[in-house]
Amino acid sequence: MNRRSFLTSSSLVIGGLSLSSFVSAAYAAETSNPKQLFNAENPLLLNFNENSLGMSSNAKQAIIDALPHAFRYPDDARSALISALGEEFKLSDKHITLGNGSSETIQAAVQYVANKAQKAGKAAQLIVPDPTFNYAELYAEPLGVNIVKVPVDNTLAFDLTAMQKKAQAFDGISMVYLCNPNNPTAMLTPTAALTNWITSAKENVFFIIDEAYAEFVTTPEFTSAIALVAQGYKNLIVTRTFSKIYALAGLRVGYGVAVPEVISEVDSFVSIDNTNTAGAVSALASLKDHAFVAYSRKSIDVSRQMVVDTLNALNIEYAPSHANFIFHKVKGDVKTYQERMKAANIMVGREFPPALGWSRLTLGTPEEMSYFVATLKEFRTKGWI
Amino acid sequence: MNRRSFLTSSSLVIGGLSLSSFVSAAYAAETSNPKQLFNAENPLLLNFNENSLGMSSNAKQAIIDALPHAFRYPDDARSALISALGEEFKLSDKHITLGNGSSETIQAAVQYVANKAQKAGKAAQLIVPDPTFNYAELYAEPLGVNIVKVPVDNTLAFDLTAMQKKAQAFDGISMVYLCNPNNPTAMLTPTAALTNWITSAKENVFFIIDEAYAEFVTTPEFTSAIALVAQGYKNLIVTRTFSKIYALAGLRVGYGVAVPEVISEVDSFVSIDNTNTAGAVSALASLKDHAFVAYSRKSIDVSRQMVVDTLNALNIEYAPSHANFIFHKVKGDVKTYQERMKAANIMVGREFPPALGWSRLTLGTPEEMSYFVATLKEFRTKGWI
Repeated sequence: MNRRSFLTSSSLVIGGLSLSSFVSAAYAAETSNPKQLFNAENPLLLNFNENSLGMSSNAKQAIIDALPHAFRYPDDARSALISALGEEFKLSDKHITLGNGSSETIQAAVQYVANKAQKAGKAAQLIVPDPTFNYAELYAEPLGVNIVKVPVDNTLAFDLTAMQKKAQAFDGISMVYLCNPNNPTAMLTPTAALTNWITSAKENVFFIIDEAYAEFVTTPEFTSAIALVAQGYKNLIVTRTFSKIYALAGLRVGYGVAVPEVISEVDSFVSIDNTNTAGAVSALASLKDHAFVAYSRKSIDVSRQMVVDTLNALNIEYAPSHANFIFHKVKGDVKTYQERMKAANIMVGREFPPALGWSRLTLGTPEEMSYFVATLKEFRTKGWI
Repeated sequence: MNRRSFLTSSSLVIGGLSLSSFVSAAYAAETSNPKQLFNAENPLLLNFNENSLGMSSNAKQAIIDALPHAFRYPDDARSALISALGEEFKLSDKHITLGNGSSETIQAAVQYVANKAQKAGKAAQLIVPDPTFNYAELYAEPLGVNIVKVPVDNTLAFDLTAMQKKAQAFDGISMVYLCNPNNPTAMLTPTAALTNWITSAKENVFFIIDEAYAEFVTTPEFTSAIALVAQGYKNLIVTRTFSKIYALAGLRVGYGVAVPEVISEVDSFVSIDNTNTAGAVSALASLKDHAFVAYSRKSIDVSRQMVVDTLNALNIEYAPSHANFIFHKVKGDVKTYQERMKAANIMVGREFPPALGWSRLTLGTPEEMSYFVATLKEFRTKGWI
């Protein structure tokens, strides 16, 4: 079944969600990939939280249009994107730093804090929840920053109280990395609790709030930490990416939002001309393509509901997902589960210790997830899950 | 006069160089830009050492072909490029680090040395010739690295002896940044002198050899410092870029070549997934497009000869150019010269103190340079140069 037939198939209108009721079939056809047959050489990739819809056609066209000029340095395209992002959040250009993916912004923020500590003759530590996305740690480690891992609680939620204590007990400068929604759990941290800590923290604590998946969040309970930047708080940077909802992972565009004095410090740790022309023009086109964003979000909602329904039917435990992936339990060890999925031509996410026995599953297109769901059901008949 | 008519015009066969005798008119037409009319809104940009030919059509096509897959992270495209570069230099994949432009490789190399010094409890200094490309300095400065500038001699050549003395007198770890050919002078440093220093330097000296313009060098007197990497020297990294001869400045692809143990250290200071898919595939296509590279080199040779002939005719002093730019004297101050050129719709390079009274001129296409040359001659009639 290809996407077009999927969209018109009433059997796949799940839980009140339907892509066909939301976007025109023509638009769906435009953004759909050709029918995919999964095999060992071309497996279904549900392991890196990419967006299987592929980038919007506007983004593709923007890149093609830019090619005759891409022999020049990317300054103009970068400036246009920075301005658009400033406007998007009702902030100024000076509140935005572009990155080569949000990973570079995380890297530069870590270097900024480590450097600040070094210049002040103080120690630096990085406090992270465990499990979480590990890039802040990967960048901190070679700088000799001590890494403090605070396990999530028994509901997989961040233990903010324990993290806060670690910061308070430290004489040097702490950086706190918080991914919201968290990777790999896809869970939200309550806005009030996060806001409370950031607004009450001492001067020797700096927050890196990774909102790579924020665009997928639909609950009104969530407020982006960018609101705190708008209020003038100087002790945080919020990082975002075009890799996820905008489907531009390969083009490497991310950004950070902070007050101008933080941005100018962080900017001295990013590479000069760090965002490429193709990435900058496609990000700008994607930002303006509200129909694509809505479609992308809706597609994930449909895919998530398909998976949730199946996990419920199979009585498999999962964390409440607010992103384009879902963290669920597997029977037995994750390695074996991954290998069996691979044999069925599906690559699923790795294990994230200390959350042993859990698998991170990227939500692909509804068509892809119907293939996954069928495979998971087959696994149950074999007693594998 | 457009490029096609230029190529068939016998009046522009200069100094024995002719593009038409080298490449077919069809190929020239394929890579040529449409006729450009320069005005205030669309000036002739000869200020950033970009390659006005634009990227090769193979590179453009490679990007277009990659767009359906560019929603995925760039790992595969990066690996393919790394392997191709390893093969290009008869080295291994482990000898190559990719960068977001060579600027990121320079940045990571500076951070690697600064970090090494810090961990050893030693001071770090950066020794640079003056004038030179300033990115190493820009990255070193926020890290608190002391910057030691050694003026070029009265022939504009690097004063290697003075630089060497600065390194020898220093108790901590020195990094030495050497751009060859140098930016802004386009001059070569003799291979023997450079090799001598690198192979005889003590362990506390690390060399960053920037060969951004090496592909333009035609003299057999030049040997890339990559030869020293091949011989196993551990005290250097050679940085290169696809921004210049390959005309991919906007796509942000550069790389470093060093022994594997240096590469693995430098790699911990680059952003993860740092080269974008569009950049990686277009760089790979460009690397294989030998006809484009030859055409690009030849085009610069023709443009350089046009400018050299004019400078000679006007009795204007210039440095011997081995790159896609030429450093020449102007009468009076450079700022005034730049403003007058701007009024004539030409943007020329900035002044590089301490080389006062010199202007860095990017060599564009022969068509562009004929416009520049005509303007320069007009300036002479006005007594401005």
